[in-house]
This record gives sequence, structure tokens and C-alpha cells, in this order.
Amino acid sequence: MALPGFRDFYPDDCAFRNAIFAKWRDVAHRYGFVEYDGPPLEPLDLFTKKSGDEIVTQLYHFKDKGDRDVALRPEMTPTLARLVTARHKDFKKPLKWFSIPQVYRYERPQKGRGREHYQFNCDIIGEAGLEADIELIALVIDTLRAFGLTEKDFVVRLSDRRFWHDFYSFKALPQEREYEFLQILDKAERKGRNATTIDLHAFQKNCHYSLELSGDLAKQVFAILDDATSAKSERLDTVETGLRHRGLHDYVKRDYTVVRGLAYYTGVVFEVFDRSGEFRAIAGGGRYDTLLKNLGGVDLPALGFGMGDVVLGEILKLHAFRDTIDRNLGLYVVIADEAFRPQAVELAQKIRESCHVAIEYPFVATKVGRQFQNAEEAHASMAIIVDAAIARGEVQIKILSTREQHPTTLDLLLPQLQQNYGAPFLRKTI
Amino acid sequence: MALPGFRDFYPDDCAFRNAIFAKWRDVAHRYGFVEYDGPPLEPLDLFTKKSGDEIVTQLYHFKDKGDRDVALRPEMTPTLARLVTARHKDFKKPLKWFSIPQVYRYERPQKGRGREHYQFNCDIIGEAGLEADIELIALVIDTLRAFGLTEKDFVVRLSDRRFWHDFYSFKALPQEREYEFLQILDKAERKGRNATTIDLHAFQKNCHYSLELSGDLAKQVFAILDDATSAKSERLDTVETGLRHRGLHDYVKRDYTVVRGLAYYTGVVFEVFDRSGEFRAIAGGGRYDTLLKNLGGVDLPALGFGMGDVVLGEILKLHAFRDTIDRNLGLYVVIADEAFRPQAVELAQKIRESCHVAIEYPFVATKVGRQFQNAEEAHASMAIIVDAAIARGEVQIKILSTREQHPTTLDLLLPQLQQNYGAPFLRKTI
Repeated sequence: MALPGFRDFYPDDCAFRNAIFAKWRDVAHRYGFVEYDGPPLEPLDLFTKKSGDEIVTQLYHFKDKGDRDVALRPEMTPTLARLVTARHKDFKKPLKWFSIPQVYRYERPQKGRGREHYQFNCDIIGEAGLEADIELIALVIDTLRAFGLTEKDFVVRLSDRRFWHDFYSFKALPQEREYEFLQILDKAERKGRNATTIDLHAFQKNCHYSLELSGDLAKQVFAILDDATSAKSERLDTVETGLRHRGLHDYVKRDYTVVRGLAYYTGVVFEVFDRSGEFRAIAGGGRYDTLLKNLGGVDLPALGFGMGDVVLGEILKLHAFRDTIDRNLGLYVVIADEAFRPQAVELAQKIRESCHVAIEYPFVATKVGRQFQNAEEAHASMAIIVDAAIARGEVQIKILSTREQHPTTLDLLLPQLQQNYGAPFLRKTI
Repeated sequence: MALPGFRDFYPDDCAFRNAIFAKWRDVAHRYGFVEYDGPPLEPLDLFTKKSGDEIVTQLYHFKDKGDRDVALRPEMTPTLARLVTARHKDFKKPLKWFSIPQVYRYERPQKGRGREHYQFNCDIIGEAGLEADIELIALVIDTLRAFGLTEKDFVVRLSDRRFWHDFYSFKALPQEREYEFLQILDKAERKGRNATTIDLHAFQKNCHYSLELSGDLAKQVFAILDDATSAKSERLDTVETGLRHRGLHDYVKRDYTVVRGLAYYTGVVFEVFDRSGEFRAIAGGGRYDTLLKNLGGVDLPALGFGMGDVVLGEILKLHAFRDTIDRNLGLYVVIADEAFRPQAVELAQKIRESCHVAIEYPFVATKVGRQFQNAEEAHASMAIIVDAAIARGEVQIKILSTREQHPTTLDLLLPQLQQNYGAPFLRKTI
């Protein structure tokens, strides 16, 4: 048994996981992002430095044999900050980096939330302008579109942490309690209107903030949450216009309930949800312009998002994406006359040396009918039948989908296979 | 700072690592292997069950918050055994499975040996015949050939654990000390002839095994080690013949000093070394027919090998493989007139939606010369220059390698790009 909250990946699960990774990489490359990675284990204080983070209470941490406090990474951003601040002078700005780390947390495993998952992380570092925010949000949308999802399936809920910061500052509420206020907003949707109203009243009272002089904080907050158009954010206007230019406007919706739990966000933030509302967030992110300075002393603006494989995987299963994963579609050498096994294996070897295609053959003498069955079960596209004729350089070819069979010679077959499977990527340059 | 013994993967390192992974996957797929994976963290007793394993003393283990004894996996075989024994009835035999886990050990980091590395694991399960051994050894050879290495660069040292078992049994030495004897052989090459002779003499004495009656064990052992042809192994004869049929005979050499440290091997074993002898083993493996029964109660013959990324990476750096890694070779949209930024970004978006190619553009107003410089530094193949002409559907194309520039229309350009970059894999079916 695997440990509670950890997944095994049997071949079908692994193919599904890898198909998700491949799409993630493909879209990131299209946006000019380059991949990086870091250790799954980091010093504990890398994660605890960013206080006010609910992740800290769920850290998978322990003492190693050298008496160091270490933790399995709960998220990638601190590692990214460590890497970038250590060598930021070596790289041209803006950096556009992505990674697909497995991340860990120690909490009670629940449906759709174990103790590990993979997270697609994309970050842009060194660009303060909103064009970068637009690019990042376009990337999150195009990532989901690459899986065949449309604006009917998901929505990017756009918000602005700075908007709430300005709102809070304008009220002259105590600065040191701003994060507490944001946490109430972050939980508002889950807790509901009544509970949140109670929380906000309690907060207002604790702040000694007069209801009579300044009005009801809860009412003011809900006026904004209920009607996003009532609250101005030039930043969000610019982002929405940029997305409209790209034809992506139908994928976004302004929604000030989104504030993101993590303490380090500073500007535009967003969360992606399926339209059915059945699942947890598919992805989330935003701007964190002060984190690199706070963690590593290097003043670089930054923004990024994370997208997990578990919620996405559940949604893709509903959309039958799993069925579209490439099957083997390789070749199967049928040894019809066991006396010619050495020649059959030699042929398999020759094809393997020059072709990027799966090629299999039976390890032991096997009835021909059984071999064809094996070939079909392995999802092979073609069988190459070897018997005494191979002494004259001849074999039979059988296309398994059509059952069509014809003889050919090795002199014809090998160049044809090489043409079809000669390179893992057959890509011309323009 | 990363923890001692752990690697960071900056983009260049990550590209190098991923290029190794891609080759591993490509060759495994050619051999009809399918990928699986398991958790990096497993219950400690999964690894300690196989006693006599030197890995156990180096385990990266700890108590988790639920008071469980857990360990970061030091190798993949126990996880594989766990997966297969749990669901072996669901899969057709033989299973041909591979994985690329990161594995961990807690020992003093040395040059070329940290506390983690990635390991390409290939295993065949459910086939007792030697054809499977031949297939596995062909796979390890073809894996290294895929990187451009030849028989001048590396050698597979073939041995037979059963040969030594038979040798030992024939001497009627005490059965319970066989593993101790094998450990002396395993260390023979590192410790040298004199020290090994002393070890074998001590072993013989401890076994109360008469020098006079039975002869000198050390002499008998060295007679075999010195001249592999003096010792018969039909198993190795068959394997060598099979490899000769495939044209791979120059890659192997019979060498009875190879016994493999791990306790669980039962038949043909092998280790792969670079010919210079400068590095640790590149790969190693063999048959372990009793492990699945011992660990999971399922009697299935099995064999496999592991190949790490660190030693291989060092060798590949000497062979300039690193320089052959694909660069970006994407497209760069040069915004020559900032007034047409929305149209330029819209064009970038259109290309991204239909083409699997990296496409970049400047986030903020940038001088045209600087943009071309950025394009070249990003290793783009082509610049698409956008100015007022885009209002008429026209842009300029500049091939960056030749500096050749010509005008074109969007109606011509987009289909051409789609044809070139339309799919991540342009692969015809035969």
C-alpha cells in the first residue's frame, strides 16, 4: 500500500499524467517560457519566511539525519525566488520560467486533495507593466483551451489585490490588520453572506472603527462583491481590454471576492473555476511584486500562476480527454516460423536502430493466432510476418485496422519505415 | 542555498536533464515499454524488507507527523514490486515497464554523487526465458547509442550470479554465508587483489573450510576472474549469441567480477562502464526472479536495470551532447510601430492558437534594433515585423540566420506557419 494521500501511477494513469504534462509544456513553449526545476526538499525556513501563509500549518516537514529542519516543498514560488535572486544578473529580463514540480502538504487526505499533486507553475519576473499580466492570463486560458476546454467550461475570475489594499487604506483601518481583513474576504464565498457579515462586524469592532461615523464595513464590502461594476480598477480595465484584443474576453469575469489566500500578492490576482462550480479552483495566481525583495533582497516585480493536475484531471475525465491519449500504434514482428527467430529479431533490431516507433515480438515460441492477438492488444498498427521467405529478403505486412495483408521486401520496407518514423519530431524550418 | 547534495535546475540544466529524459523515453517506447511511477515517499519497511542491502544504511528516512516510519525512495524496484504484486492479474505478461524516478540517499555528498539523482528504470516481469535478458541488455546498449555513444565509449560487463551460486554450492560452503562471499567478490575490483585474497582467506578460515582438502578459495576465484573463458555459463553463452544476432556483440564483455551489490539478484547480471574507466558505473541490473515472491507473495520472474542521470550526464558533457540540445528556434514579433501593438499582439495570439512554436514579443515599447537583438538572444529563427502596413494585412518577414527580409501578407503567412508548426508530432501512419 502507498502512504495515505500519495498516488501510484500505473501505466494508464501515467500516460494520462504525462499527456497533461506534455500539453502544459507545449503551451508554455509557445509562450516562450523555459523550464526550470528545484529540489523537492528545501530548508524549512524557506517556506516559513513568508508568514501569514496558511500553507505553513500544513507543511510536510521533519528533521533530517543532519538535524536540519527541512520540508517537502508545498509550493514552488519560494524555490523560484531562491533561484532567481541568487543569479538574477545572469538572465535577461523579463524571465519567463515554468516548472512542473510535485508539491506536498500534510493534511487529512480528502476527495480530490491528497498529500501530493503536480503543479504547473508559470512566472514572469522583471516586468512591472500590465502587458505581462495580460500575457500570463492569456497563457492560463490557452493552457486550458489546449485540452479542448472552452469558455463554456471554465472562467477566469479576475480581481485586484491593490484595489482592496486601497479600499482598506482609504478607511484608515489599522495597517497591521490588513491581512486579517483580506483573509475574511478570501473565505467569504465558502462561509456565506451571514457568517461573513458577522466576521466583518467583529473585525470592525475589534478595530474600534465606528459604525456611526464610517458606516457599516460589511455593507460596503458586499456592495462591491455584489456588483463588480460599482468598483473601479484601472488595472483590471487595462487587463480586460488586452484580453479583448486577443479574443479572450469571454473567458474572464471581474470578481472582487477573489483575493487569494497567500500573503504575498500585490496586484492583479485571478482564480480559474469550472463553470459548473463543482470543483475546487483549477488554477490561481497573480502579481507578487515585493516577494523577491522580501525573500532574497532583490527588487524585481513578478507574477505567476499555479495549476494542479488533480482538479484538472477530474474535469478532463468528464470531457473524455483521457480517451484521446495516443496509444502505442507501433509494430509487431510475428514470428510465423520459429526457425527464423534470429532473422526476425535482427529485423526488429534494425528497425529500432533507425525508427522512433515501438516494435515488439514474442520472447518465446507462440502460436501465430496468439501473436496477432498480442499485437492487437498492444495497439500495434501493423504486423510484420516473418517466415522462411525472409531468407530471400521477403516478409508479409498486415495492417491491423483493415486486416489487409501484402508481401514486401526488406529493401522496400526499411526505407519506408525510416521515412515514417525517422525522427521523433518531423518539423521543417520555414 | 539548496540543501547539501540536492541540485537546482536552472533553464540550461533543466533542458539538458529533459533531453536525457526524452531520449530515455524514446528508446523505451521503441522497445514497447510503458511508463509507470510511484510516490517519492514510501513506508520505510518497503525498503528494509530486502535485508542484506547496503542501500538500507544510507536511507533518507524519518518519522512523519502521523508517527509513521517513512523513507524517500532510494531505488524504484521495491515500489515496482509493490505495484505489480497488487495488480498483476490486470496485466498481460510479460510486463515491460519503465520509470524515471528521482531517488534519494542520505550519505556524504561526493563529486558525482549527491543525495538525489534521477534513475531510468526498465523492467521485464513475467518472462523466465533468456530472450528477455537479451532484450533488456539490447535496450541498455541502444539507450546509450541513442546519445551518440559507441562501443569505443562504453562496455557492458556481463556476469552470472547463478554461476557464483553454483560455484559456492559446489564447494559445500555454509549456505547462510553465501551473501558474505558475494560481497567480497563485489568489492574485489575496488579493494584490489591483495586485500581480496586476504578477505577470501579469512572467509575460508571462518567457514572452517580446509585449505588442504579443498584448495585455496582465493586462487580458485582469481583463476576465474583472470580468465572469464575458463568458466562456463550456458546462460551467458546464450545471451552473447543473442546479442551477436543483433549486431551488438562488440558492446559486451564477460566479466565475473560483476556480482551487483544488491542481495536480490538471481541470474544474469551486468554493469555498464565507460571504456576510460574514469567514472562510476553508468548502469547496472540483472535478473531478480525471487524478489516479487519474497516481497509480495507473487511468484513472477523479473529482471531490470537502472541508469542514473549524473554519471551519464558527465560522460555526455565530454561528448558534447549538451551542444546538440534543441534551442528555441521560435518566432519573434517585432513591434516597429507602437501604435499597432494591439494588432501585433492579436497576430501573436493567432499564431499561438494554431501553431506549436514559441512566439514572443516585447511587453513594453522597445527600440527596433533592441528587439532584433532580443530575438537573436532568444534563438528565434524568424522575426515578423509589424508596422502600419498591418492595417492592409501586410508584414515583413526576416530570417534571422540569413538576415534575408521580404514582405508577405497574413493570408499567406498564417497557413504557412500552420503547415510548419501545426502539430507537436507530424507523424504519418504507414
